[in-house]
Amino acid sequence: MVRAIIHASELLTGAGIRKKDGRKVLEKDLGRIPDGALVYSTRKQDGKEIPDRIEWVGPTAELPRRYARARKQDLRGVRALIPGMVDCHTHLVFAGDRSDEFALRCGGASYEEIAARGGGIVSTMRATREASPALLERLGRERLKEMAAYGVRTIEIKSGYGLSVESELKLLEVIQRLKRAAPGVTVSSTFLGAHAFPPDRSREEYLRDVIEVMLPEVARRKLADSCDVFIDPGYFTVEEGRAILARAAKLGLRIKLHADELADTGSAGLAAELGALSADHLLKISDAGIAALAASRTVAVLLPGTAFYLKAAQAPARKLLSAGAAVALSTDFNPGTSMCLSLPAVMTIAALYLGMTRAEIFAGVTYNGAKALGLEKRKGTLEAGRDADFAVLPFSRFEEAYYRFAWSP
Amino acid sequence: MVRAIIHASELLTGAGIRKKDGRKVLEKDLGRIPDGALVYSTRKQDGKEIPDRIEWVGPTAELPRRYARARKQDLRGVRALIPGMVDCHTHLVFAGDRSDEFALRCGGASYEEIAARGGGIVSTMRATREASPALLERLGRERLKEMAAYGVRTIEIKSGYGLSVESELKLLEVIQRLKRAAPGVTVSSTFLGAHAFPPDRSREEYLRDVIEVMLPEVARRKLADSCDVFIDPGYFTVEEGRAILARAAKLGLRIKLHADELADTGSAGLAAELGALSADHLLKISDAGIAALAASRTVAVLLPGTAFYLKAAQAPARKLLSAGAAVALSTDFNPGTSMCLSLPAVMTIAALYLGMTRAEIFAGVTYNGAKALGLEKRKGTLEAGRDADFAVLPFSRFEEAYYRFAWSP
Repeated sequence: MVRAIIHASELLTGAGIRKKDGRKVLEKDLGRIPDGALVYSTRKQDGKEIPDRIEWVGPTAELPRRYARARKQDLRGVRALIPGMVDCHTHLVFAGDRSDEFALRCGGASYEEIAARGGGIVSTMRATREASPALLERLGRERLKEMAAYGVRTIEIKSGYGLSVESELKLLEVIQRLKRAAPGVTVSSTFLGAHAFPPDRSREEYLRDVIEVMLPEVARRKLADSCDVFIDPGYFTVEEGRAILARAAKLGLRIKLHADELADTGSAGLAAELGALSADHLLKISDAGIAALAASRTVAVLLPGTAFYLKAAQAPARKLLSAGAAVALSTDFNPGTSMCLSLPAVMTIAALYLGMTRAEIFAGVTYNGAKALGLEKRKGTLEAGRDADFAVLPFSRFEEAYYRFAWSP
Repeated sequence: MVRAIIHASELLTGAGIRKKDGRKVLEKDLGRIPDGALVYSTRKQDGKEIPDRIEWVGPTAELPRRYARARKQDLRGVRALIPGMVDCHTHLVFAGDRSDEFALRCGGASYEEIAARGGGIVSTMRATREASPALLERLGRERLKEMAAYGVRTIEIKSGYGLSVESELKLLEVIQRLKRAAPGVTVSSTFLGAHAFPPDRSREEYLRDVIEVMLPEVARRKLADSCDVFIDPGYFTVEEGRAILARAAKLGLRIKLHADELADTGSAGLAAELGALSADHLLKISDAGIAALAASRTVAVLLPGTAFYLKAAQAPARKLLSAGAAVALSTDFNPGTSMCLSLPAVMTIAALYLGMTRAEIFAGVTYNGAKALGLEKRKGTLEAGRDADFAVLPFSRFEEAYYRFAWSP
C-alpha cells in the first residue's frame, strides 16, 4: 500500500450534504476548504496502482505529521478537488447516427418528412441490433472516456435500444465488459428492456419477453444492478410498470423509473411507493408526486439538458428542493433527446434554468447522484474511510465548472 | 512549395453560399461532396510549413492525374472537411473570475447581494487593468487554443475591458501579439473602447478620450482592423455611436456595432446606413431594422449563447433570414454574459432556438462569419484560388458538429 497526498486550491468535502442525506443543502454543507489536502491509500489492480480509501481530509495547515513521507501532488493555485462526479442516468450504449434527423427537426421539417427519411428510436434500435458487441463496446469506451475527462467517476448505463431478448442481453453484456474495462470509472448497469415497445412484437408478447424471459436471465447472470421502466403515454402504463418492477424487485434488482416526463401519470408516486432508488425526468410531476418523493428516500433525478434539447418546460426543481426531495442531475445521454456527454454543461443549464444554488448543484452531481445508484455509503463525499473517489477540476474553484459553459477538458 | 491532398468522408465547399453572398441559402448551396478531396499548396512561415492556397476541390473520383505525387492524408470514414470556421464576435482578452457572481445570480441572489460582493463589468475592468500584458496574452492564447480545437480558424477579438486610454491600448497590443503568436488562427482586432462608461471618468471626458485620444492612436499604430460601439440604454446613445464611428471610418477603420440588444434603439438601421461590416446581438431589432439590414451588405451577427446565458428571448432569426439578411453566428465569449468558448455549442442553440437549417448554420459559421470581418474574399468557402483555410471535424458528417451538444475535441 502506498499513501498519497493531493494539495488543491480548494477542496469541497460535501460532508454536510451526507449528514442531511442530500436534502435542503446549504452553502455551509459544501465543506469548502481553501488550500485543502486529501490523503488516500492506493492498491494494485491489473498491475496498476489505483486510489483506494480516503485516510484524511482537511486544511493543508493541519495535515498530521505522520503523513510527512507520503507521495505528494501539489495543485494549489490551479486545481480544485471535489468528490468524483456521478452521472446517474445515461443510455450510453447504442449505434447509428441521428444527426440528419436532428438537423431536419430543428430546420422545421415536418414529422412526416423525418419519418420518411427514417428516424426515431426505431432507427437506433435497428442500428444497435445490427451492431457487433465489439463495435458497441468501442463506442461505449470512447463515450466513457469523454465523460470521465470532465471529472465524472461513476456512470450509470441503461440497456434499452435492443428491445428483443437477444439484443437486450447483448447490450447488458457489453455494459458488463465496460464495467471491467473502464479504468478509473465505476459503471452501474440498469436493465431497461421496458424502454419502448418494439415494432416486431405485440404488446402482450413484449411484456411477456421482459417479465418472463429477460428479467430472470438478467438476474440469474447478474447482468444488471437495477431495473428501469419508461412509464408515459405511448410507452408503458403504470400497471405494466408495476408488474415489471415487482418482478425485478423479487429477483433482487434495485428499481428506478422514467417518471412523469411527457405527462403526469402518477409514476413519481409509484417510485416512492415502491422504494425506488430514483424517479427520473419529472417534467410533469404533480404536487402530490412532489410530496411523495420528498417523504421518501427516492432521489428526484433531473435531466435539464433533455428539456433544453426538446425545447420543453423544465422540471419544477425549486418545488422539489423546497419540499425536501434529494435532487440529482444527469446528462440523460442518448441519441434522440440529449446527445450530450458533458455533465458540466448540464450543470450550467441547471443553474440558469432550474435556479439551483451552488450547494444544490454540487449535491446533485456528487452525493445525490451516488444515492440515485445506491452507492452513497461509499461515494459522493470526501471523508476518511470512504472510497478515494475524487475529481481534479481544471479550475481553481468549483463554480468555474459550470460558470464556464460547454468547456473542454 | 509542397502540394498536399486531404481525402475526407465528406467535404462541404459552401461555394453556393458565396454565390448568393450569404443570403437565403439552401441545402444545395452547401456544396456537399461525399468522399471529397482538397488539394492545397503550403508555404514556410517561421520555419513551419503551413497551408497556403486551395488548388483544387472535388470528388476523389475526379482528382486530376497531375496531383498523383502530392502528399496524401486519408480521413475517409472518420472525418468531414469544411471551411475553417469563423468566430466573428468575442471579448477574448480579460482577467478576473466572475464564477462567484454567476453562482449567486443563478441561485436567486438579489442584485444588492451581488453588488455587495463586487460584480459586473467593473470587476472585470479592474482585474484587466491590473493584469500584466504577459498574463493577458497567456490567458488569450489558452482561450484561442480551445476555440481552435473546435475547428475555428478565424477569431475576432475586441478590446473593451480597459476603459482608459492606457488600458485599451494595452489590450490592443496584447491582441496584436496574439495575431502574430497564434499559429493556424487568423485574429481580427476590434477597438471597443466604447464598451461602457468607466466609473472614474465623466461621460464627456470618456467620449473625448475615445474620439480624440484612443481612436487616432489606434489608427496611427494600426492596432485594430475595426471599431465597435455598444449602443443601448445605459451604454452609448445612437448620437454618441454615430460620432465615434464617423471618426473611426475617417481614420480608415471598418465599423461594427453592438445593436438593439437590450432595447430597439434603431442601431441596426444605423449600422446599415453607415455601411458597417456587421450589426451584432439584435435581440430587440424592429421590423424596420430587419428591412434595413436585408437591404444592406451589413451582416446580422446573432449570439444565441448570450440570450441562453441571460435567459432572454432570442433574436428574430427567421425574420432576418426570410427578409434576406446574411446571418452569422458567434460565441460572444465574455465573462459576464457568455463564458463559452465553444462555437459548436452555440450552433446547437441556434438550431434548437433560432430554428436555423443546416445550410443557414453552416453559412453562419463560415462565409457569413468571414463577411462580418470583411474577409469573405479569401475565407469562408473551399474553392480553388482561395486561402487554404479549412477545418477537419472529428466526425464523418458536418451535422454531427451541432447535433452533439457541448462536445470536446
